[in-house]
Amino acid sequence: MSQRRALAIHGGAGSFARESFTAERWAAYDAGLRAALVAGFGRLDRGGSALDAVEAAVRVLEDEPLFNAGRGAVFSHDGINELDAAIMDGASRAAGAVAALRHVRNPVSLARLVMERSPHVLLVGTGAEEFALEHDVPLCPRAWFHTDARYAQLLRARAGDGSVADQLDYFGTVGAVALDGAGNLAAATSTGGMTNKRWGRIGDSPIIGAGTYAANDSCAVSATGHGEYLLRATVARDVAARMEYRGESVTAAARAVIGERLTNLGGEGGLIALSRDGEFAVAYNTRAMFRGVIDSDGRLETGLFSD
Amino acid sequence: MSQRRALAIHGGAGSFARESFTAERWAAYDAGLRAALVAGFGRLDRGGSALDAVEAAVRVLEDEPLFNAGRGAVFSHDGINELDAAIMDGASRAAGAVAALRHVRNPVSLARLVMERSPHVLLVGTGAEEFALEHDVPLCPRAWFHTDARYAQLLRARAGDGSVADQLDYFGTVGAVALDGAGNLAAATSTGGMTNKRWGRIGDSPIIGAGTYAANDSCAVSATGHGEYLLRATVARDVAARMEYRGESVTAAARAVIGERLTNLGGEGGLIALSRDGEFAVAYNTRAMFRGVIDSDGRLETGLFSD
Repeated sequence: MSQRRALAIHGGAGSFARESFTAERWAAYDAGLRAALVAGFGRLDRGGSALDAVEAAVRVLEDEPLFNAGRGAVFSHDGINELDAAIMDGASRAAGAVAALRHVRNPVSLARLVMERSPHVLLVGTGAEEFALEHDVPLCPRAWFHTDARYAQLLRARAGDGSVADQLDYFGTVGAVALDGAGNLAAATSTGGMTNKRWGRIGDSPIIGAGTYAANDSCAVSATGHGEYLLRATVARDVAARMEYRGESVTAAARAVIGERLTNLGGEGGLIALSRDGEFAVAYNTRAMFRGVIDSDGRLETGLFSD
Repeated sequence: MSQRRALAIHGGAGSFARESFTAERWAAYDAGLRAALVAGFGRLDRGGSALDAVEAAVRVLEDEPLFNAGRGAVFSHDGINELDAAIMDGASRAAGAVAALRHVRNPVSLARLVMERSPHVLLVGTGAEEFALEHDVPLCPRAWFHTDARYAQLLRARAGDGSVADQLDYFGTVGAVALDGAGNLAAATSTGGMTNKRWGRIGDSPIIGAGTYAANDSCAVSATGHGEYLLRATVARDVAARMEYRGESVTAAARAVIGERLTNLGGEGGLIALSRDGEFAVAYNTRAMFRGVIDSDGRLETGLFSD
């Protein structure tokens, strides 16, 4: 296993001001990011696959109420938490995704089951939960996803108080990308979507090519931001396409997709990407993006604002 | 309005044998394709937009029971018709999509409403139908979508008789791409999905970048085939990406995406695409694909098998 191993994660992007984000608040997020990095990289260190690593890392972030995914999911307009997730295997380009779940604690793991145990890629709503039950995934009560902080955000959003300082509360997402000892890439993304979303809205996270993409011949990508724009810009696939069709580095491709393609469309967001050589890229056009990276060369970093 | 105007449509791709498809059967499909071409091109001729044209053409195909969309939708495993559609405006790259509808006669028109009247791109299930009601789109009873031919296909599929001769019944889709007098492109796709689909399965049709994509700087694309593969290969966006990033013609890009990218992944399907110059491309790796094209130079053609 001489191949370089690496795992990168993100916990959402937003445009809140640096001064509003206290050291104490950062310490809590930083601990969550580091727990996810350690859990995911532990898989890689024990010979696990990139798929195992991204699933493990995202599960930690789903269980951490600070992030908008799993337990910390935001509320829809109707006061319900509806969860979306996707996973993609760069080796086979197999993919699985789930959306509009209401009773699944770890959507990323259900997405992996869809990939590995169904003939389909994307399952939604009660049908996806029926699939979960048929594969012995227990459903949990909706109360698991109720956090007072998120509910307060919904009440503020319904009252029309969508201040910029709160923007992270609206568009958060978590995700991971990994490169394993066998040289395989994988990506996963999970989200509660957008505070106050309506009418069964689904964003980019569970959409292959938009929020999530992985192919061994280019890179693995997980995106976050205003999902409608990320969908229209097919951001995750575009990072890979620029590498494949233009020969760009993962860093150049990530910067162009966020700095030009997404920005020109008027969208806000960011992404993390990992090339097959283990090169890590992060790009965002918001003020901040929660992210972290760990690799077999001993790198272990987390970050939020630009340096 | 000296700009060239063009509309192309498709009615699905499949690998049934030429000898099994009688002249009488073709005559019925051909009439349906021509009705859609005339309806859509009539909009362009009266100065309508590419969006108007693709919506009008797809509505005709949705109302024609021969095609797997709208009225002629296939049945899911549970004996229900669940409909998906998307539309995209090449000028603004705005997009709208709906999935898992059960009571909307013309899903493509609801997709357009989502694009124009909601802050979201993709709405699913009962939420999408709630949105329809709020915008005065009447719901129809499920009986509208019941056709004996499709129900018989479900019974055969459930019995495990998924013969190749019936493949078109499983993966049909309809779609349209148009170029209007102002030089704008648009694309739309609509489907009943896959016979015997389960668990709230959604395919490529309503996914921007997979089954549907349009951008004025490259092309408009609508795809059809085994949706899971089209999703993983992000086929619609890839045609545009090859034009944008490699400078390929729409014909070369369409052939590469179907003949190499989709085929190498093991998927079957096809697509139609129209460039901003009005160049029309069709590509498929199945034996046959229903399609037609009409333009302001007087071209009016329909086709099924390769020549």
